[in-house]
Amino acid sequence: MNANKMEKDPRDISPLMAPRSVALVGATDHLTSFGGRVYQQMMGFGFKGNIYPVNPRLKEIRGVPCYPNIKDLPETPDHVGIVVSAERVFDVLAECATKGVRFATVFSGGFAESGTAEGRERQQRLIDFGKANNIRFMGPNCNGIVNYIDRFTMTSTAAVKGQYAQAGDIGVVSHSGGLGQINVMWRAMEHGLGISYEASCGNEADIDTLDFARFMLHSESTNVVLLAVEAIKNGEKFRRLAEEAAELEKPLVILKIGATAEGSRAAASHTGSIAGDNDIVNAVCKQYGLIRVNECPELYETAVFLRQRKWPRARGLAAIAPTGGNIVNVADAGATFNLQWKAFTPETQEALAKLMPGYGKVGNPTDLTSAATGDQDFYRKALTTIAADPGVDVIIPIVPSPTKANLLQTVDIMNQCGKQTAMLWVGGCTDDLNYRARDLIRDGVVVYRDATSCARGIRAGYDFGQFVALKKSGALMPVRPAGIDLGRAQSRLQALGAKITEREAKSVLACYGLPVTQEALARNATEAVAHAQQIGGKVVLKIDSPDIAHKTEAGGVRVGVEGAAAISEAFDAIMASARAYAPNAALNGVLVQEMAKPGVELMLGVIRDPVFGPIVVVGLGGIFVEVLKDVAYRAAPVTPMQADEMLDELRGKKLLEGVRGMLPRDRNAVVDAIVRLSWFAKDFADEIAELDINPLMVYENGAGARVLDALLVRGGA
Amino acid sequence: MNANKMEKDPRDISPLMAPRSVALVGATDHLTSFGGRVYQQMMGFGFKGNIYPVNPRLKEIRGVPCYPNIKDLPETPDHVGIVVSAERVFDVLAECATKGVRFATVFSGGFAESGTAEGRERQQRLIDFGKANNIRFMGPNCNGIVNYIDRFTMTSTAAVKGQYAQAGDIGVVSHSGGLGQINVMWRAMEHGLGISYEASCGNEADIDTLDFARFMLHSESTNVVLLAVEAIKNGEKFRRLAEEAAELEKPLVILKIGATAEGSRAAASHTGSIAGDNDIVNAVCKQYGLIRVNECPELYETAVFLRQRKWPRARGLAAIAPTGGNIVNVADAGATFNLQWKAFTPETQEALAKLMPGYGKVGNPTDLTSAATGDQDFYRKALTTIAADPGVDVIIPIVPSPTKANLLQTVDIMNQCGKQTAMLWVGGCTDDLNYRARDLIRDGVVVYRDATSCARGIRAGYDFGQFVALKKSGALMPVRPAGIDLGRAQSRLQALGAKITEREAKSVLACYGLPVTQEALARNATEAVAHAQQIGGKVVLKIDSPDIAHKTEAGGVRVGVEGAAAISEAFDAIMASARAYAPNAALNGVLVQEMAKPGVELMLGVIRDPVFGPIVVVGLGGIFVEVLKDVAYRAAPVTPMQADEMLDELRGKKLLEGVRGMLPRDRNAVVDAIVRLSWFAKDFADEIAELDINPLMVYENGAGARVLDALLVRGGA
Repeated sequence: MNANKMEKDPRDISPLMAPRSVALVGATDHLTSFGGRVYQQMMGFGFKGNIYPVNPRLKEIRGVPCYPNIKDLPETPDHVGIVVSAERVFDVLAECATKGVRFATVFSGGFAESGTAEGRERQQRLIDFGKANNIRFMGPNCNGIVNYIDRFTMTSTAAVKGQYAQAGDIGVVSHSGGLGQINVMWRAMEHGLGISYEASCGNEADIDTLDFARFMLHSESTNVVLLAVEAIKNGEKFRRLAEEAAELEKPLVILKIGATAEGSRAAASHTGSIAGDNDIVNAVCKQYGLIRVNECPELYETAVFLRQRKWPRARGLAAIAPTGGNIVNVADAGATFNLQWKAFTPETQEALAKLMPGYGKVGNPTDLTSAATGDQDFYRKALTTIAADPGVDVIIPIVPSPTKANLLQTVDIMNQCGKQTAMLWVGGCTDDLNYRARDLIRDGVVVYRDATSCARGIRAGYDFGQFVALKKSGALMPVRPAGIDLGRAQSRLQALGAKITEREAKSVLACYGLPVTQEALARNATEAVAHAQQIGGKVVLKIDSPDIAHKTEAGGVRVGVEGAAAISEAFDAIMASARAYAPNAALNGVLVQEMAKPGVELMLGVIRDPVFGPIVVVGLGGIFVEVLKDVAYRAAPVTPMQADEMLDELRGKKLLEGVRGMLPRDRNAVVDAIVRLSWFAKDFADEIAELDINPLMVYENGAGARVLDALLVRGGA
Repeated sequence: MNANKMEKDPRDISPLMAPRSVALVGATDHLTSFGGRVYQQMMGFGFKGNIYPVNPRLKEIRGVPCYPNIKDLPETPDHVGIVVSAERVFDVLAECATKGVRFATVFSGGFAESGTAEGRERQQRLIDFGKANNIRFMGPNCNGIVNYIDRFTMTSTAAVKGQYAQAGDIGVVSHSGGLGQINVMWRAMEHGLGISYEASCGNEADIDTLDFARFMLHSESTNVVLLAVEAIKNGEKFRRLAEEAAELEKPLVILKIGATAEGSRAAASHTGSIAGDNDIVNAVCKQYGLIRVNECPELYETAVFLRQRKWPRARGLAAIAPTGGNIVNVADAGATFNLQWKAFTPETQEALAKLMPGYGKVGNPTDLTSAATGDQDFYRKALTTIAADPGVDVIIPIVPSPTKANLLQTVDIMNQCGKQTAMLWVGGCTDDLNYRARDLIRDGVVVYRDATSCARGIRAGYDFGQFVALKKSGALMPVRPAGIDLGRAQSRLQALGAKITEREAKSVLACYGLPVTQEALARNATEAVAHAQQIGGKVVLKIDSPDIAHKTEAGGVRVGVEGAAAISEAFDAIMASARAYAPNAALNGVLVQEMAKPGVELMLGVIRDPVFGPIVVVGLGGIFVEVLKDVAYRAAPVTPMQADEMLDELRGKKLLEGVRGMLPRDRNAVVDAIVRLSWFAKDFADEIAELDINPLMVYENGAGARVLDALLVRGGA
């Protein structure tokens, strides 16, 4: 922990994570009780500070004096662990407050996770008590922490015992004790990685998963933080955490369990978490530079590459193997993760031809055939030659069944080849079956056993490096575009009623520079004719009423009307239809609108996510959105690059590139519209419940786009 | 090997796989040579038959007499291994022919895999020689076989040595030696599985991967066959193999490497394989009941469930764990593989309530919380109660960090619970770190370490069981629909010229009962008017010429024409336009066609795959096919159920269910059209290069569908 940087930070949880002294209320001397297990792990882990067991029913535990309560302790502990019944928690906390304790871990259950009103009320009381008494706490319903650096545990798990207990550089944060401590922490250690800190946060009523992750990020001992969480509860805090991770160049890898409807339901009854929209979480992780994975092993497997904290400059891979099948397999895996197998330069080809006479053109990935078997000098030259190719960013030596000496020689060659490396060791060690990938990983070598996890790890490193570089360059900082008149939009919105018409919505959007159709409200047929003349050509006429949402259904739309007589007639007909359809509706008149040319239809929208706030949505209009749910999300505001990425995520993106002989569409205009909309979404986050632009008609390159219709719904935050 | 069944089968390769005596040409006494390694593995593996080393330069190898050539052997060996230079192979085979040898393994390279004309010619000579002399052979450019049952090897790999060499029930077939023997075979053994047979087939110029798989399927020792292949070369043989697998109720699991463009390129230079269209391979695997996986570990992990050869009756899962995070995680995994977590019946709920008083409603999957820890009696009752629920087909006990005794008790409870089980053991064994999942797997217990692989294995078992049941029921047998007039279609097609017009194509399709538009050819304006009157209402007029493919471009299409004058004028205009557009084109006249109502547009087609023959394609018309490539494939012919599945695979399938207030479409009519088209594709496989029905206009339920346009291109097989 870099104590200097954080010690005056009110968010600093160092005394909880690395206390000088600690008390455990509910300590016992037998392992059948939870408190007994917590006490035993703590005593056996090598903690150097004072440990005070507290239990009014015991005089001592295995020779250590036991205290009846917190008040009677000889000093104020930095951190108090509490293993008592739910209602007794408050008595203990009151004692802590009196004693001046600042940090506590509440293991006890019976709070919000119970799903009962009583439990929720009890949790709120806990929160209130903590705030009122300046006590910060972990839990309730949690399984505490492990600090491998300072040999401190406050947890019941036996997973900290035994051969894997040495400290390492991986931080682990989870809601669940079992998942975080077994599926991630223990398995990562079994995989050869070492852990710096682990936190199983339970209900996170006060200190939450993000606080723990932040502590670990700032610790000098930690290179990567793995999150296995059921929910993200504070979008803004999450964003700031991600920013710190990028600034520190320490990746956050996230597994969000409860991603399916079934998993989400299970999560709700586990820690009371509401899992949130999976697609939005995906989008936000990408936007903020987090690496999202899909199952527990992917967390620590990805960390094997990431913990070096060296980021591949580009996506160029090379691989060499003595077996052609593995070459085919690794080629697939690289392509699956959109990494590149570039052809070698003529210089590399020439050098390889000298090395392998009669071999012909050398492909990438490279099948060395059995020529490589046993000839380490040849192998070193081949690998080094390939590594020197300018198109190679990461080289993957594939080793099937090496001897231990082979392995160590290969590591030596990897270390000296001048490029990043990832060994793909697919078999076993022929002369020492107990020597395994984990032994090399423990020594800091990047080793994978399967091509897929290898490619995933490299891709994660490339992605994070790109994110860090973009962030440093300032390209991820959203910049408010010119031509936004926030004040005018505010006053317009204030002037409008509870229900907002299409025309009104567009007039607000126009303040943000969105390309709305040319249009004007006609209160009578004469005005309609005059507006139409000014607009020119054919026009569209639409009823304008805050009370009529479905204009077509009300007979309130006429398309392609031209000429004074026709327009006058259409005005009257629309007003009559609308009156018949909704006799009590307030009718403002008829909107006379330019008749936009056909183009490619997009849908742009804003939704309000309970965690991440205003979210911009873009999709291809019509059936693409309705049938395929082919949409992309980002938290507002977005940069032009992010808006462009959103379009790239659409399965139907080819429609913008021009299909069926159509010219490519004006992508810049769409990007500009998304960016402007995202600023509107941000600025009016508290006032807008929903916004839909549908369609945004997009024309060929240079011809822009047009907002044909818009729906704006008010709603308090 | 069930020798009785196969011994008179000309496809039987038993003497190769399980010879009574064997010779190795190119045997040496040192391990630096390939022949030395093959000889050493064979000598050390426990083979009971005679082994004859053959090498003119050696008198003996470590005390065993060495023969100068095949001719001088004291008996005719069942199987001869050949490790000599490419050109010397033919001399050795000539000796084999003289001696009456029936089976050989050609390890030597320098054949088709070289990518040279010389290599390809040499391979063809090898094939011709084998046929002419009644010698069947494996390879060339292969790494031979392992037979764990009879302790016979004919391979250079050291992967057969050491602690994993005991026989088991998994067969492995691969093109590659390295991938098949290390990534699959050795890793499967490391995982706790045992192997029955392994074959690394190389160029498979004669005996191919499917022959080896077939041998293994018929062996009594084998329960599952794993294929890690770069290509499937014979679609019809593949289909028959899959049928045998289903009849024997032994699953084939397939990893097709070279699935991406990059991997396919790498495969071409490895064994000269052309990887084939990945989407078609996927479709055919599904159609034939193979289980396709995406990386090597998925092969053997899936086999852990499949090797029991018990198939879950339905998709109902249950899981119990002492840790809530794992419950959320397994819920996600089950849902991802479309397995079901059904709510427990009231009876189960009541029984569980008695067991867990005060727990409230018990969810599925079930968080037992720490109540389960250490109380095996409670655990047994809970698991058994849940297993008895009629909605549960497979139950997953999740164990985090058990003692060895816990594990064995859990296995006992699993065995007695009356349902299929799959243990999900996510951590380690607390009192014996060396006791691992592989130890349980070795004893036949179904154990997974991660929820995803567990759910994948169960899903594979369910899918295969469903396939077997459907096959037994006869539902997978394609039945020619009534109303197909094959003879009439044949004579029509014979009567047509080299280029086939829309009208001609439809007249052929009509013989198969496909619902073509009502239409007739008019040679003059008078006929056009008469045809239009007979059809009634508005009509479409299209130029009819074998020389004009793009009718619209030629000004040859008029839509929605009505009335004698208009039709007469349109006829003349179309003929004039066509003449101007293509002065030398033969003009048959103008096709007068009913004006079909709008509906949902589908595309139906037939393509000819070089491996799998005629393939039916269906997609949603227009941009869905063009932009999203949203199509489904099946080999022809198909059953109605398979046609229905094809529609289900379309991402845009909701269009058929009715969107935007449209009524649901006539799915039966589409299914019928697909089935009829598939029979046409099969019957005329050798005569048709390509067929496109675009669009097939689909109407609301009961209103059928209509073939509006069709393109039929001739082409010899």
